[in-house]
Amino acid sequence: MRNIKLTLEYDGSKYCGWQRQINGVSIEETLENAVRKLFKEDIKIMGASRTDSGVHAKGQVASFKTKSKIPVFKIPGAINARLPHDIVVVKAEEVGMEFHPIYSAKKKRYSYKIFNRSIEPALMRNYYWHVGYNLDIENMKKACSYFIGEHDFSAFKSQGGSTTDSIREIYSLDITNDKEYITITVEGNGFLYNMVRIIVGTLVDVGRGRIAFDSIEDIIKSKDRQRAGITAKSYGLYLEKVYY
Amino acid sequence: MRNIKLTLEYDGSKYCGWQRQINGVSIEETLENAVRKLFKEDIKIMGASRTDSGVHAKGQVASFKTKSKIPVFKIPGAINARLPHDIVVVKAEEVGMEFHPIYSAKKKRYSYKIFNRSIEPALMRNYYWHVGYNLDIENMKKACSYFIGEHDFSAFKSQGGSTTDSIREIYSLDITNDKEYITITVEGNGFLYNMVRIIVGTLVDVGRGRIAFDSIEDIIKSKDRQRAGITAKSYGLYLEKVYY
Repeated sequence: MRNIKLTLEYDGSKYCGWQRQINGVSIEETLENAVRKLFKEDIKIMGASRTDSGVHAKGQVASFKTKSKIPVFKIPGAINARLPHDIVVVKAEEVGMEFHPIYSAKKKRYSYKIFNRSIEPALMRNYYWHVGYNLDIENMKKACSYFIGEHDFSAFKSQGGSTTDSIREIYSLDITNDKEYITITVEGNGFLYNMVRIIVGTLVDVGRGRIAFDSIEDIIKSKDRQRAGITAKSYGLYLEKVYY
Repeated sequence: MRNIKLTLEYDGSKYCGWQRQINGVSIEETLENAVRKLFKEDIKIMGASRTDSGVHAKGQVASFKTKSKIPVFKIPGAINARLPHDIVVVKAEEVGMEFHPIYSAKKKRYSYKIFNRSIEPALMRNYYWHVGYNLDIENMKKACSYFIGEHDFSAFKSQGGSTTDSIREIYSLDITNDKEYITITVEGNGFLYNMVRIIVGTLVDVGRGRIAFDSIEDIIKSKDRQRAGITAKSYGLYLEKVYY
């Protein structure tokens, strides 16, 4: 048996998310079907991150075990030929049998894209969250520092996640902007259900003056979801990279 | 009568282009229908640029004459409420009756977006031209300088344009890149049919070594379309701004 690690890019617009659902087509099943067709084995794909419907990925990781001897450099092209254009295998590597996409992950990086203008954009509507309010970027940047470090992020978690432990460490949280385009980048050892989207929504609430930048510390300590900001839209979120 | 100038943003993906066609829905008719519904007059819209199918706009200009007294600041919202989400009126201004979107234009700026990686992208497929070859960006930049100035651009024109005079002046042509993302920006007093896309295709042919950067001068002088490069895909092109 060989253990194959895939690096994936996908456009989440037309999918119900990574994970199989009763309603809608998932990325997991679309990829699994393509891999099964290629290898002619009953392969089970495991993904590093259960991205939600609409969420995009530039560096999702998935792995599967196979008896096939197909050379690893041929795998991306062969799978891509069996995939729709909005899911692409960027890289394939053979890894040790102990490699597990979730448990072996050491760090993840997400980015979030905002288009900030009073009038809605006509372009790239599936790739940016449109925020129409004036945003104070400097206050949003000040708020970022309070998230860094190891905290119980219960206030930044939606119902429905599978984990009970809510302690996570954020290594960096940065905001850059170029005219109307704002990019928020976050790195951490792991993220709770909707955590990145709630952090982004809270930063936007800071930017528009609904939450004070220096109240983030209290909000984290409260462990109260009601005190944090809104949940940002799914389609502005990109899983950038999983580190092993 | 009042003369109203509109600045428009649109996603060209689902349209047959600006101009009415027998097959397909045009941006012109979609906008005209929305404006006629709002003003309840038999209004005729005139656009500054006949963008092709798939081409996007951030700053297309259109104008129309109306007897209505609706305040100009209310016009964008009122038209947008009657438009699909992929066409947006960004600004409305009242201008002198002599204003004509085509004949009054002094300068136009287009941008062109390329995604340069061997593997096709999964994301933003309607907004970037995917070029899989290795590109020598420095040679592409060197080629740009030969386009600057007033030339007969017959070699950079497709059949089917409406003008007979092929002399145009290019004020600037610049290339920037950020990892796999390349942006080409061009300003000129006007552009022939497909001229920007043929310039971009020629620059890509320079980048991949099919055309020498210092042969651009000869190609322009030849007035021979066969000597210039390929026509870049429509969906990487953005009409950025029309100057008056």
